[in-house]
Amino acid sequence: MEIPLNKIARIVAGEIIGDDNIIISGVNALDSACHGEISFFVDKRYEGYLKDTKASALVVSEKTDNFSGSQIVVTNAGLAFARVTELFTPPVPRYPGISEHAFVHKDSRIGQNVSIYPMVYVGKDAVIGDDTVLFPGVFVGDRVRVGKGTVIHANASILQDCRIGDKVTIHAGTVIGSDGFGYVKEGTRSVKRPQIGIVQIDDDVEIGANNCIDRAALGRTWIQRGVRTDNLVQIAHNVVIGEDSLVLAQAGISGSVTIGREVIIAGQVGIVDHKEIGDRAIIGPQSGIAQSVMPGEVLSGSPAIPHRLWLKTSNLVKRLPELSDRVRTLEKRIEELEKNM
Amino acid sequence: MEIPLNKIARIVAGEIIGDDNIIISGVNALDSACHGEISFFVDKRYEGYLKDTKASALVVSEKTDNFSGSQIVVTNAGLAFARVTELFTPPVPRYPGISEHAFVHKDSRIGQNVSIYPMVYVGKDAVIGDDTVLFPGVFVGDRVRVGKGTVIHANASILQDCRIGDKVTIHAGTVIGSDGFGYVKEGTRSVKRPQIGIVQIDDDVEIGANNCIDRAALGRTWIQRGVRTDNLVQIAHNVVIGEDSLVLAQAGISGSVTIGREVIIAGQVGIVDHKEIGDRAIIGPQSGIAQSVMPGEVLSGSPAIPHRLWLKTSNLVKRLPELSDRVRTLEKRIEELEKNM
Amino acid sequence: MEIPLNKIARIVAGEIIGDDNIIISGVNALDSACHGEISFFVDKRYEGYLKDTKASALVVSEKTDNFSGSQIVVTNAGLAFARVTELFTPPVPRYPGISEHAFVHKDSRIGQNVSIYPMVYVGKDAVIGDDTVLFPGVFVGDRVRVGKGTVIHANASILQDCRIGDKVTIHAGTVIGSDGFGYVKEGTRSVKRPQIGIVQIDDDVEIGANNCIDRAALGRTWIQRGVRTDNLVQIAHNVVIGEDSLVLAQAGISGSVTIGREVIIAGQVGIVDHKEIGDRAIIGPQSGIAQSVMPGEVLSGSPAIPHRLWLKTSNLVKRLPELSDRVRTLEKRIEELEKNM
Repeated sequence: MEIPLNKIARIVAGEIIGDDNIIISGVNALDSACHGEISFFVDKRYEGYLKDTKASALVVSEKTDNFSGSQIVVTNAGLAFARVTELFTPPVPRYPGISEHAFVHKDSRIGQNVSIYPMVYVGKDAVIGDDTVLFPGVFVGDRVRVGKGTVIHANASILQDCRIGDKVTIHAGTVIGSDGFGYVKEGTRSVKRPQIGIVQIDDDVEIGANNCIDRAALGRTWIQRGVRTDNLVQIAHNVVIGEDSLVLAQAGISGSVTIGREVIIAGQVGIVDHKEIGDRAIIGPQSGIAQSVMPGEVLSGSPAIPHRLWLKTSNLVKRLPELSDRVRTLEKRIEELEKNM
Repeated sequence: MEIPLNKIARIVAGEIIGDDNIIISGVNALDSACHGEISFFVDKRYEGYLKDTKASALVVSEKTDNFSGSQIVVTNAGLAFARVTELFTPPVPRYPGISEHAFVHKDSRIGQNVSIYPMVYVGKDAVIGDDTVLFPGVFVGDRVRVGKGTVIHANASILQDCRIGDKVTIHAGTVIGSDGFGYVKEGTRSVKRPQIGIVQIDDDVEIGANNCIDRAALGRTWIQRGVRTDNLVQIAHNVVIGEDSLVLAQAGISGSVTIGREVIIAGQVGIVDHKEIGDRAIIGPQSGIAQSVMPGEVLSGSPAIPHRLWLKTSNLVKRLPELSDRVRTLEKRIEELEKNM
Repeated sequence: MEIPLNKIARIVAGEIIGDDNIIISGVNALDSACHGEISFFVDKRYEGYLKDTKASALVVSEKTDNFSGSQIVVTNAGLAFARVTELFTPPVPRYPGISEHAFVHKDSRIGQNVSIYPMVYVGKDAVIGDDTVLFPGVFVGDRVRVGKGTVIHANASILQDCRIGDKVTIHAGTVIGSDGFGYVKEGTRSVKRPQIGIVQIDDDVEIGANNCIDRAALGRTWIQRGVRTDNLVQIAHNVVIGEDSLVLAQAGISGSVTIGREVIIAGQVGIVDHKEIGDRAIIGPQSGIAQSVMPGEVLSGSPAIPHRLWLKTSNLVKRLPELSDRVRTLEKRIEELEKNM
């Protein structure tokens, strides 16, 4: 693919410094780019690479003197580079139509221009929206509704009755609609409380690989517009995650937790059931949340405390041997004093 | 489905207060129930919903005055509601017989009334018991034995020689019988110790989605009757989990750990290899277990300590800046005293 | 299978004590072995089993007097036992050729003696090396290159353009080449930065079950020769893992982390993005790594500190209630002294 630099500059609303007449053939990292490729420079950690890069052009947030090629100066270089990368990204590869090696129930409803790869299963009364792609090994249960322009990657399973919106991406191996972990004790035995709700995933959501999102006991587990989850995330029954929130890898969210909008849940965080996480809260990596969190709070640690306090206490824990010694010394000195009184 | 309220009351051995002549058409949460549906009230946190619920009947543990419809009073409302929900739960959807889009080895043995969906693979000398359901994408390796009335959900993999009991449920994406992580160093290289044991899962077990249960190095990894695991659980080679124990999401159990009966392992717990966890022990969320645990112990923290002590120390860690200040103040005061002596 | 003991001794370069004329028919654990089987004794914890074992021979690191059968004395009993076990391990079961129930793109290139099970998908321009085995449900995307003698287990997904070396094992349910978690904020929305790099897995690597290894944003995520990962491991985009390193179950490695050679990352460890872990470092279970780690360092805790210091501080945290009491007592004593001055 070849795109003139000035077309790229127009698309990202940037200003070209240097030769604006060149043709760009690809996008690459600073240290791997070849002649003809565009790269970007936004993170000072990589300043050392500028001198040696073979890139013909750079997207930058401010003009740099350490680079001799063309530069596109933009206000948000990260965002601009995402847009530029998109220009050079091949579209999702599509199987032409419905493979005869797939099993599509005769009572399902398949939209226009849907791509169903071999080894896919689509159940009774399932609905697949226009332009959607189902990769090999995808299981779509009975009565599932998948929206338009959605991509479900290999070996993902969407169980009966769940609803997936438009322009959703679900990565490989993910399970949507497994039973919630709901049991009631009868003596020593755990009697299953049937899980008869659903999972609802709204438009423009991206779910990572090998996630598990459990169906609600009753009602719905609800992932709202714009949410992104990383890999190996656990979302239990009846959880609600608000718009544009991010959940990083291996985080676990227990039953009936309600998460607000634009929340960031870092990797390996655990949240106890029935808690509420307020809008725009930030939970640091490996934190354990056992209490509800106010909007905007920034917490760390297990059990979690305000992030700044956690920085202090982590430092003091490290110095406990010293503190302990100081207390022992104090005891000796005071004993001495008491003797001398 | 329509069931008279007095039939429901009979099934859960409850006493009806109010009109016992009504017909129930479904089950739902307090805040979502429609006219004709039954709900339940057991958790005081939801008392506020009682006034506005449209449910026609409630299962309760004691009569409430805040609800005008019929009530079924039972001794264990949670259990009763599980039973009621079951009445309205559709059975597992069954493919009629063996799909011609499945691959079932000619030297396998398939029981009566087995449901094998398209895209299933059943290997040589595998045995599938009566009434069992294998959803699309299920892999059953050579010589695997699956019992009667068992359900294996989409894209789960049961590797060669493993044994699954009767009335077991295995959720989607789970792997049973992957190799244990066993290597021996030869210089800097890790030489694989072949893993030639099996996984044995006894009757009436439920395994969550995207679990990994490794086969034993030698002998068996053994999940006993009544165990329930949540999603994304790791169970290493030669682990034994005793009857009716619960393992919550993302917990990880290292090799040769032996867990007693009715143990509760909370979410994201890690247990070091070769430890023993006594009967009815409870391990709190995110705990790290590096020592064996006595029966009935309740532990929290990483490394884990008695739960009550952990509550205290967590609180004191939070106040370490204050403690540190107090020690500094003491040092100044004692210095002052020493000077004045 | 029957193998004379003296042949076994020759293979592991060991010395036989006792009858060297016997025939061995299998390998088993001390407490499960039958007559005719060989077992091994290397871990003193199992000394009690020696008396009662029915094994006909043992691999030992030094002669024991508590066993009456034949012994093979070797310098590295663990390694020798791995070799002996291998002798009795059946080879990976192979589907004869390419199943007609698989979908293999006409523009793919399949080597000699490849085994492709039913329900496999191999995409356009994919290359599969000689002797490789693809189990049911495996997805191989377009342009993927898989080397020779590699085994990919059931329901694993290898996405487009990724490269897998020779003699690699990938366990069931694992996803190689899912998109990295890369977004740029535009207002409150997360705009996807397309992930157009690949995953490269070098020769002789073993990847556990239900892992997720993300493709690079640009360039490659790179798993080098000899690496072994356990189950449910998360490896983010642009991570590099050096030769012979081990990553245990449920560890999570964030984007652009560089790990040296012969590093050990224990279970449930989390590593923050862009950090470097030096050669031969050891990171203890559940540790949180927020800073780069020097070669050979041994760290534990979250946040991680030197392991020995962590042992001390863990012990002192447990005794914080006592320390706190001692400080309170000191305050009273000093107040007393001050009064008396």
